[in-house]
Amino acid sequence: MPPPITLLTDFGDRDGYVGVMKGIIAGICPAAALIDLSHNIPPQNLAAARFTLLNAYPFFPAGTVHLVVVDPGVGTARRAIALQTPQGTFVGPDNGVLSGVFDSLPMADINAVELTKPEYWRSPQPSQTFHGRDIFAPAAAHLAAGVAITELGKKLDPQTLMRIAIPQPKISTEQIIGSVQHIDHFGNLITTIPATAIADRHWVMQVGSVEIPVGQAYGEVEIGHAIALVGSHGWVEIALNSSSAQARLRLAIGDEVRLIAKGKSD
Amino acid sequence: MPPPITLLTDFGDRDGYVGVMKGIIAGICPAAALIDLSHNIPPQNLAAARFTLLNAYPFFPAGTVHLVVVDPGVGTARRAIALQTPQGTFVGPDNGVLSGVFDSLPMADINAVELTKPEYWRSPQPSQTFHGRDIFAPAAAHLAAGVAITELGKKLDPQTLMRIAIPQPKISTEQIIGSVQHIDHFGNLITTIPATAIADRHWVMQVGSVEIPVGQAYGEVEIGHAIALVGSHGWVEIALNSSSAQARLRLAIGDEVRLIAKGKSD
Amino acid sequence: MPPPITLLTDFGDRDGYVGVMKGIIAGICPAAALIDLSHNIPPQNLAAARFTLLNAYPFFPAGTVHLVVVDPGVGTARRAIALQTPQGTFVGPDNGVLSGVFDSLPMADINAVELTKPEYWRSPQPSQTFHGRDIFAPAAAHLAAGVAITELGKKLDPQTLMRIAIPQPKISTEQIIGSVQHIDHFGNLITTIPATAIADRHWVMQVGSVEIPVGQAYGEVEIGHAIALVGSHGWVEIALNSSSAQARLRLAIGDEVRLIAKGKSD
Repeated sequence: MPPPITLLTDFGDRDGYVGVMKGIIAGICPAAALIDLSHNIPPQNLAAARFTLLNAYPFFPAGTVHLVVVDPGVGTARRAIALQTPQGTFVGPDNGVLSGVFDSLPMADINAVELTKPEYWRSPQPSQTFHGRDIFAPAAAHLAAGVAITELGKKLDPQTLMRIAIPQPKISTEQIIGSVQHIDHFGNLITTIPATAIADRHWVMQVGSVEIPVGQAYGEVEIGHAIALVGSHGWVEIALNSSSAQARLRLAIGDEVRLIAKGKSD
Repeated sequence: MPPPITLLTDFGDRDGYVGVMKGIIAGICPAAALIDLSHNIPPQNLAAARFTLLNAYPFFPAGTVHLVVVDPGVGTARRAIALQTPQGTFVGPDNGVLSGVFDSLPMADINAVELTKPEYWRSPQPSQTFHGRDIFAPAAAHLAAGVAITELGKKLDPQTLMRIAIPQPKISTEQIIGSVQHIDHFGNLITTIPATAIADRHWVMQVGSVEIPVGQAYGEVEIGHAIALVGSHGWVEIALNSSSAQARLRLAIGDEVRLIAKGKSD
Repeated sequence: MPPPITLLTDFGDRDGYVGVMKGIIAGICPAAALIDLSHNIPPQNLAAARFTLLNAYPFFPAGTVHLVVVDPGVGTARRAIALQTPQGTFVGPDNGVLSGVFDSLPMADINAVELTKPEYWRSPQPSQTFHGRDIFAPAAAHLAAGVAITELGKKLDPQTLMRIAIPQPKISTEQIIGSVQHIDHFGNLITTIPATAIADRHWVMQVGSVEIPVGQAYGEVEIGHAIALVGSHGWVEIALNSSSAQARLRLAIGDEVRLIAKGKSD
């Protein structure tokens, strides 16, 4: 049985574009299970796609092929790439959408190629507007079917791959200054502060003039009240019990949040 | 071949949360087909999730595993449960989302357990914010893979399970007073009145001062006109031929509707 | 292994209706992969469903079963049909949603039947509001499971099938007058002008008083600038590099666009 193939795009859910990629895959590796990560990445938003992939891929079987098509530079000189790692195989444009993978894994673990071999494309003349269909989906399907990544094109130095600059939190023993990096469907505000940064102290969250307690489960505060906690993805997030923190606090991506130390944790 | 697993959540379709649950399932029972019921239940809306599950599960093969994660109490004392019935197996929080199942089946048919065995969780320390990933998805996958429900935890008395109070219609021979319990994507207004209540008489529907004929197919009235009929789910619904009853009549969930008897049906 | 089954509806993604059809299919042909084309066709919009199917089916394996349920006439006299072609098998109402198939393939290639055999329906008394569940999904599943199309009902003359009138562009050597036929998730304006019409000349696109260059890839113009090109579907489209042409140009479906010849291409 081949590994599953996940799909992550900004194609939305009205048009047939995602279906068409799945049709191409079904023609090459029909037994692969197809799992949607999201097709509602905001159009052309590379950072959002990077975030979604980074927080999802660790929960898939190691052999999974992750196909990512957020590709504003389709038809230009940007490279088409595949990355093999011990945690999964990744296919997409070299524009930073895959950079969460090599930001979270040792570079020595990454085997990168440029997808230069037309015999693994849908046709030798791919469309200049839909490499998802003509280059990336075929590559993902061939990888799931067992083709070695080195067959798909020429080896790349992973150090040359595009990165996206991600705001880093400023961490001291007194306080941590971070920012909102993602707002999810529930209105939870997911910050740039990783769980590891808050492990050994007690903290309180400050957002403008609002103080928010730091806890562990949404239900520790009354319904409609705010709490900061480490979310399931491993980032500090601000949530409202049974409601939307975004609707209440009116924060946007990039807005500053601040943790103030209250003493050592037990 | 394992049975299919359905997924029903309030996670929306922007984030990777549904995909992550599918990744966990793919690691435990990769051959199970995964079928989405809906991920657009309004956040934390237990009644809407209960309604959607109740009206979908009877159409699936009897062995199907139904995974339901609408879970505002995640991380609190609410129980995680699984129910085995002749009509399917159900996994989710004990907060009422599964109560459509035991409201529609004899209690004697239900084998209930609390998911207390950490060896069937993703890890012995589950996240306090995402039991869908750490407890429910693994349980569903193990059940689909053939693990007996009694292996997953301690047996529960089904009488102790949480119910959601559902408004009941008032039925007499002269009239039936019900209410809107769901508004679907087409703007059809689905009432709390079951098909069985209207079987032996002719009726007319009254909504405020508007009278609506009761028929059998949308096309019995002109395009844009209203009709009341028994929908495919078995409830009386108010629809407009080729348009939205909700947009026209401006009813909300809970609003009263009334059927007036016109005489015995043939 | 059975062929995949695709699903194309106007059911949206909130209710369980699509899931219910998949449940019926899982009971008949559990090994068939299920691929969503779209469930966000605007309600009752036959032309939009026709367009989406027409532009997706050529990319699927030839044996694929395409299930299309946009069915405002459900419960009326409109026929339920299946079409077998060398490019795929199609199931849906005879209301024009499948007409892109016979507009794009020779009539001699089409084997058409009316779905008149109740033994292949979900039950002998189908609901009058949901033939997707009771007639079309069972037919698609039986076809994927290997039942011959001629088993499902009586043979039809394909010339009698319903068509949708599609606006045709006016093509001369000097200019081509077309219109917008679809606006996709990215805001790309897809016109009624096929790639073949522009192959041998240079052109410039005129929309009202705006002139738009004709090129080949979005990235040929600056970010935020407009370009007309042949999209991946084979139609001339108007796009903005990394932004929405629809938001900028404020065109609607049916609005006129005009290509002006500038000379022979090389």
